[in-house]
Amino acid sequence: MARPQQYNKEKVTAQAMHLFWKQGYQATPVSDLVKVTGVRPGSLYSAYGNKEGLLLAALEHYTNELESDVRRRVNSSITAKEGIESLLQHMIFEATGDCSSDGCLLINTLLEMSGQNDNVCHLVSQLLVRLEQCFTEVLERAKSEGDLSQSADCEQLAVFLMGIIWSLKVMSRLSPEPWRMQALLTPAMKGLFEN
Amino acid sequence: MARPQQYNKEKVTAQAMHLFWKQGYQATPVSDLVKVTGVRPGSLYSAYGNKEGLLLAALEHYTNELESDVRRRVNSSITAKEGIESLLQHMIFEATGDCSSDGCLLINTLLEMSGQNDNVCHLVSQLLVRLEQCFTEVLERAKSEGDLSQSADCEQLAVFLMGIIWSLKVMSRLSPEPWRMQALLTPAMKGLFEN
Repeated sequence: MARPQQYNKEKVTAQAMHLFWKQGYQATPVSDLVKVTGVRPGSLYSAYGNKEGLLLAALEHYTNELESDVRRRVNSSITAKEGIESLLQHMIFEATGDCSSDGCLLINTLLEMSGQNDNVCHLVSQLLVRLEQCFTEVLERAKSEGDLSQSADCEQLAVFLMGIIWSLKVMSRLSPEPWRMQALLTPAMKGLFEN
Repeated sequence: MARPQQYNKEKVTAQAMHLFWKQGYQATPVSDLVKVTGVRPGSLYSAYGNKEGLLLAALEHYTNELESDVRRRVNSSITAKEGIESLLQHMIFEATGDCSSDGCLLINTLLEMSGQNDNVCHLVSQLLVRLEQCFTEVLERAKSEGDLSQSADCEQLAVFLMGIIWSLKVMSRLSPEPWRMQALLTPAMKGLFEN
């Protein structure tokens, strides 16, 4: 009996994630969460504790998906350097495509809740460090492939790469012209890979 | 009689700016604005139309101050390249100092109001383009000083520089360790100035 319930919770978390991502946390009443998930308030509370618990689960779920996407994209590229370029290109494509962009759930949440909810900000901070570690590994692979010098500090470069991704995500909220998004790519790759 | 009223309005706008910056727009009731400015609601409404009008004035004021700060810092440096590095160092210092950072009012407002208020987002977009133009001029100076190749596209590099500043401002909300902020500086300067 455990598996169907498990699956269900993941689906509910994903539905809540999309709603928080689109509307923000404070602008999403529990009634919207009930409507979109089809789960009664009592069941939501028993599964997540409260609305904040549902946000925390949604943030984890978002990060898991993002991390899987990064790893899949990099693993399917010939080199890690190409994988990073393809990831950035994909983000540019998404942000300049027809579908509207809701930016990054982690950043949106951080800016909405900063100074208001330490629990949430602490988790966002931890999840960002997890993404940073994932990028550090990717950059270590680039080093082993000879695209970074042996003295390159992959941990520091991962922070820079995260910064570039944040810029793209923030910029995507402005419905920018494609050239503006593309303008970041060449200097970002240069900042990462030119020794 | 015009000048004292003018001065007063600028002061009120600055006070409102600091409040919106600290608390966000939606979380700032008119009663807070009345308290901090010492101006009665009727006078605020007659000067700014409504709370949104006061936000629009605050965003303009914020951008004017930021632009003046950039120009002052660059003009007092020997080269534009040094001016840019000093500006980024100053932002890192501010974000890792004792005083808490409220990030960037333009980005905070954009992320708070995106999809909710087109008027506000349109102004934020225009003000960001104005800052971008200011950075394009600074980079043109760097080109004339020989720190950029003649073929460098200063308009595109200005977008990259804005992106780096956005990253620093977003990161500052996380109360980051100094090394994380510093990690952005070297690759950012490389992305800008290595041809």
